[in-house]
Amino acid sequence: MAVPLVAMSSLALAYAPANFPDAQASDPARLGWMVGSPPPADRTVRFEDGSYFQFPAMRWSVSNFRQLMPTINVSRGLGAPVPLEIALRKDIDGISFVPLGAKAPMTWEQSLAATYTDGIVVLHRGKVVYERYFGVLKPDGQHAAMSVTKSVVGTLGAMLVAQGHLDAGKRVAEYVPELTDSAFGGATVRQVLDMTTGLKYSEDYADPDAEVWAHARAGSPLPKPKDYEGPRSYYEFLQTVQPQGEHGQAFAYKTVNTDVLGWVIARATGRNVAQLLSEKIWSRLGAEQDAYFTVDSIGTPFAGGGLNTGLRDLARFGEMLRNGGRFSGQQIVPEAVIDDIRGGADKQAFAKAGYTLLKGWSYRSMWWVTDKEGGAFMARGVHGQRIYVDPKAEMVIVRYASHPVASNSANDPVTLPAFDALAEYLNRNKQQ
Amino acid sequence: MAVPLVAMSSLALAYAPANFPDAQASDPARLGWMVGSPPPADRTVRFEDGSYFQFPAMRWSVSNFRQLMPTINVSRGLGAPVPLEIALRKDIDGISFVPLGAKAPMTWEQSLAATYTDGIVVLHRGKVVYERYFGVLKPDGQHAAMSVTKSVVGTLGAMLVAQGHLDAGKRVAEYVPELTDSAFGGATVRQVLDMTTGLKYSEDYADPDAEVWAHARAGSPLPKPKDYEGPRSYYEFLQTVQPQGEHGQAFAYKTVNTDVLGWVIARATGRNVAQLLSEKIWSRLGAEQDAYFTVDSIGTPFAGGGLNTGLRDLARFGEMLRNGGRFSGQQIVPEAVIDDIRGGADKQAFAKAGYTLLKGWSYRSMWWVTDKEGGAFMARGVHGQRIYVDPKAEMVIVRYASHPVASNSANDPVTLPAFDALAEYLNRNKQQ
Repeated sequence: MAVPLVAMSSLALAYAPANFPDAQASDPARLGWMVGSPPPADRTVRFEDGSYFQFPAMRWSVSNFRQLMPTINVSRGLGAPVPLEIALRKDIDGISFVPLGAKAPMTWEQSLAATYTDGIVVLHRGKVVYERYFGVLKPDGQHAAMSVTKSVVGTLGAMLVAQGHLDAGKRVAEYVPELTDSAFGGATVRQVLDMTTGLKYSEDYADPDAEVWAHARAGSPLPKPKDYEGPRSYYEFLQTVQPQGEHGQAFAYKTVNTDVLGWVIARATGRNVAQLLSEKIWSRLGAEQDAYFTVDSIGTPFAGGGLNTGLRDLARFGEMLRNGGRFSGQQIVPEAVIDDIRGGADKQAFAKAGYTLLKGWSYRSMWWVTDKEGGAFMARGVHGQRIYVDPKAEMVIVRYASHPVASNSANDPVTLPAFDALAEYLNRNKQQ
Repeated sequence: MAVPLVAMSSLALAYAPANFPDAQASDPARLGWMVGSPPPADRTVRFEDGSYFQFPAMRWSVSNFRQLMPTINVSRGLGAPVPLEIALRKDIDGISFVPLGAKAPMTWEQSLAATYTDGIVVLHRGKVVYERYFGVLKPDGQHAAMSVTKSVVGTLGAMLVAQGHLDAGKRVAEYVPELTDSAFGGATVRQVLDMTTGLKYSEDYADPDAEVWAHARAGSPLPKPKDYEGPRSYYEFLQTVQPQGEHGQAFAYKTVNTDVLGWVIARATGRNVAQLLSEKIWSRLGAEQDAYFTVDSIGTPFAGGGLNTGLRDLARFGEMLRNGGRFSGQQIVPEAVIDDIRGGADKQAFAKAGYTLLKGWSYRSMWWVTDKEGGAFMARGVHGQRIYVDPKAEMVIVRYASHPVASNSANDPVTLPAFDALAEYLNRNKQQ
């Protein structure tokens, strides 16, 4: 059985041995995945049996999803890319910080291996001050954004609200009548955007009865088994999600909210999220590369986790947000959208979800909003994917990674203080 | 069962009714394929049951292969595209010609509908003099090149020969020992390039025992049925092809030759045809868009027919060839390669294949070489795909189409005199 990103990623977690090989030992270029004609049998990555997302093969797969699954293009348009200004700094590698829960310090450079980084770009005051690639990711490659996808789709949703195409106070059923009898029918668009819906939906991969498995089976682009009687697309699955608890009370991070938002967006605009992302953002960003979404068997983009992009283009996206939605002389996202995200959401509702490393944070329009002064906000995808926009430090970090453990709680003890140390360092040591 | 392009395309031919709806009535935008969230059941295109390549759904599919199958990228690089100079001419639409076997004349504009054209670009003396799009193909879209792929891969093969990386006189088995016991083992690389191999391989789709079906099953990226015991990739299939007749005697157009060439290229260079096409040509062409190949279940690009590109980029490729391999200030393909193709191959060997509309032509390095003065040459893909390079007329035509009948013999009676009339007209009416 093949399952989508969120599910497989945690399968790797559930079944992997306690001790993983380190970044160098698991380097997908060094291991030679999919090299040769044909590649050796034990270095061949196939989608059909789900092994593509077992560590360490997964380290190749995250840079090559389109070779495994059908996808839909997010066109950058046909014009010239807008070059990023480059002002690389060699002093960054030596920045030192202490990982959470540790005693010994670690350098920035060491943090890259510790987080199984595939690629990282740092912008300070609009210039690229740091850029590195590892394994099989290259500047002209495309990497899975995982749940960073949610923040991109959330941005589209918030834009449509700001521009009057979506009413955040309306119930989902008004846009998608098929969801009337599901848990989502009575939720508002805002509750979906902030993931405060009350859903009977478990993402506990250790539980074979968890709803995430039905979601995965429905969304797989592979043909269904002959005896399969369940939902056959993301849209069909979403209609089966049942309510649990009250909407609007607590933040609960559940991928299906973003898939519902994608459906609402499609109904409100006549375009799916891939088409809309190209039209509203990607084609106006001076992107170097097209991006893409994985799709289910009827061409539905996986709004909850299917985006793949070039790393520098993700940096352009982050820098656009840092600049209040402006980039390359255009207002791409309304400034009010960025201000609203920076302002965060209900911290008490967020606290109920129990993220011990994210105290004082909140979740707004599918962005993780920190407790930092200036409203720094983050997109977070399993296995270490990140966009970090720190307006006060005038800094943007984008990182693609393939950490063996899906949950970001495994890399946050390194990631969070590393990002903070870099922000502080750049603030203190401004380049002229 | 899902089957690759060449196979499905002729299935459509075999099973379609005698009278097809015309271009307007079968327009995929008008019919609304894959529009809606979800699309209506009778407007949903799925890969798994093969219906995606039945007419008229096929008219959507040829512009959206990546939504149906896994694919591998052909990067254009990250720089600025090289703009094509535009000098559109309105006088072209009215050019008149008489289709072969007809009595009444037809205009150029009428020929577009008659050939179910999805997009067409004409360059004259390096400038775009004509550009039109129909149905769901847009300038920023990508369309299946079908067997035009062969000419692109053949160009790569001929380049490698010219540059000394491949020896055209060597036998295939020297590059791919796994093919030693197949029909290909004793054939030379040149015989493969010119398709004069003697193969027991039928592309007769009406015959359920034809080898093309085994080729199709092997190359499908979908999981194999449980009781399936045949080859599981293009490479595995190629090893099963048996000899018939002598090599070097007669031209016989068989897709597997190009798949073998792709394998030889991979062994000689360490890169598959997608990677090599990017490196040697696409990234040096100032292309607007990445291209892509469909792949089998182990990531092998379908060298015989899996390329998809933007139409203008195909025009750049054709214009580069017209200019003796130079484009945008670079020598991309050695001039000797183009001269060799223009010179054609053994016309007697070609005549044995019995193409009644192509008398005096030949087949060289996977290009169809006409009998025109100056060595005009053509890439031909089922359902009407074309690159036509006419050096004497200083003209390049690229066309993507979705004609209901796979075989080009169905559209050649319109296509061939239309292209000739345009060449003659442009020669007589040169723009200043």
